[in-house]
Amino acid sequence: MREFDEKSITQAVIARLAACDDPRFARVMTSLVSHLHDFVREVSLTEAEWFTAISFLTDVGKTCTDKRQEFILLSDTLGVSVLVITLNHPAEAGSAESTVQGPFYWEGAPELPRGSNLAQGVRGEPAFYSGRVLSTDGRPLANALLDIWSGDGEGNYDMQIPGETGMRARGRIRTDAEGRYWFRSIRPTFYPVPTDGPVGRMLRKIGSHPYRPGHVHMIISAPGHLPVTTHLFVAGSRYLDSDAVFGMKESLVVQFERHPAGAAPDGERVDTPFYTVSYDFRLRPAVATAPDHA
Amino acid sequence: MREFDEKSITQAVIARLAACDDPRFARVMTSLVSHLHDFVREVSLTEAEWFTAISFLTDVGKTCTDKRQEFILLSDTLGVSVLVITLNHPAEAGSAESTVQGPFYWEGAPELPRGSNLAQGVRGEPAFYSGRVLSTDGRPLANALLDIWSGDGEGNYDMQIPGETGMRARGRIRTDAEGRYWFRSIRPTFYPVPTDGPVGRMLRKIGSHPYRPGHVHMIISAPGHLPVTTHLFVAGSRYLDSDAVFGMKESLVVQFERHPAGAAPDGERVDTPFYTVSYDFRLRPAVATAPDHA
Repeated sequence: MREFDEKSITQAVIARLAACDDPRFARVMTSLVSHLHDFVREVSLTEAEWFTAISFLTDVGKTCTDKRQEFILLSDTLGVSVLVITLNHPAEAGSAESTVQGPFYWEGAPELPRGSNLAQGVRGEPAFYSGRVLSTDGRPLANALLDIWSGDGEGNYDMQIPGETGMRARGRIRTDAEGRYWFRSIRPTFYPVPTDGPVGRMLRKIGSHPYRPGHVHMIISAPGHLPVTTHLFVAGSRYLDSDAVFGMKESLVVQFERHPAGAAPDGERVDTPFYTVSYDFRLRPAVATAPDHA
Repeated sequence: MREFDEKSITQAVIARLAACDDPRFARVMTSLVSHLHDFVREVSLTEAEWFTAISFLTDVGKTCTDKRQEFILLSDTLGVSVLVITLNHPAEAGSAESTVQGPFYWEGAPELPRGSNLAQGVRGEPAFYSGRVLSTDGRPLANALLDIWSGDGEGNYDMQIPGETGMRARGRIRTDAEGRYWFRSIRPTFYPVPTDGPVGRMLRKIGSHPYRPGHVHMIISAPGHLPVTTHLFVAGSRYLDSDAVFGMKESLVVQFERHPAGAAPDGERVDTPFYTVSYDFRLRPAVATAPDHA
């Protein structure tokens, strides 16, 4: 057969994979084509809708720059990112839960001494973060790396601030011999995902708000352990119950304790009210230990 | 609930559509999210694969220009375009069959007198096209418009030829009072879809060739009738049985009859061998006539 109807076309596309020498790629593409065609058939997609989709995807691609990833934002707002993360990092594995990386990660933040203020000159209420990085067996992990980033106290990432070309509210901190970390930054607030592009138009059409609850991002890694890309969410923040990217995890919600102006945990004098927050992260060993019966 | 597992996330995303005031959009998005999530779950997509997909889609978007539509090419090579067309233009409706528009349509080709040579200065063997445009009831359609485009005799579209900035092998021709059209162009040959971009990389990974059988594109429209986007395929062309975009329809395959150098159908003298080809296109009335029992 060399001509296809609306049913046989799917098998015809899949049959072209017969010569593919990568079985995993062939499996992924077979499933993708099946579901994509099922979708088109299920809704009887019109040609005008198809063209709207082509234009939308083109626009999403064109909106991507070296500092903005609109396809990640699309994946985030359709719940695909958190689905992939949840499948690959089951909560029962005992490590800190993973959540979305989001579109604002910037590789190569400076490594700073423990106790540094990551948010020098950044708007927002001061917050002092501390805690430990541990293996899932409870052993403290020395020299673990926390790659930290957040928006400012008004919800703006450095990349979004007109005229700001450098890194702000970003830094990398290592744990000490007892697995402890501490640093200063700000208390993050809720903010909208970027709404001036095609994904923003989609959210308005869906009728959904674009806000994320206040959170700080971290990628935590340690020798011999699986890295974790995660957040700490601010307890009590607005939108914890309707995160625009579905990334909220109860286990990552932490209290930001308010203190009056005065001496901070590290002894320095802070002349505005400030917050303290503490959280221990657990990481899974990279190679599972052999079970007893092996 | 405000935190979701790998199953409940799908309903959570769909629930956000509750405030959407466009029921058709809500239905399309509900189906899209369901199938997209089912795909991710079915193959347990890894984070590395997800990121490869993000990068690929971004690259597809960035490859699009005002003269190249890589997302249409992606849709074409995954059989989505022809599926949408087949759903929207059932063959049994009696009109000329539709097929893919492809990525090389250029709006605004010049309207030329019947009998014009569309391929002045274009490489390829001369071909004389003729036929009629009719309503599905057999009535000839005067003043119907044929918007015609093809590659040259070596398979290259004007947009693909380095240094070529104008239109080549394109033109619009109207039918006469008896619904007849005729024009001169070239006999198209098989050619590869563009392979220097991300879709080309995908085809190599699939293990599939990028060739389309020889064809000329036409969009045919007439007052009071539904337009048809279609091709004429060259009978005997290579790749008729494995069109890279699945667009081949038996009803659109036509004989290109070869003639020695000499007098062409329009009387002009051609000093190389040439071809003649004839095809009648039928269009459906835009408003269906009321059935007898109405």
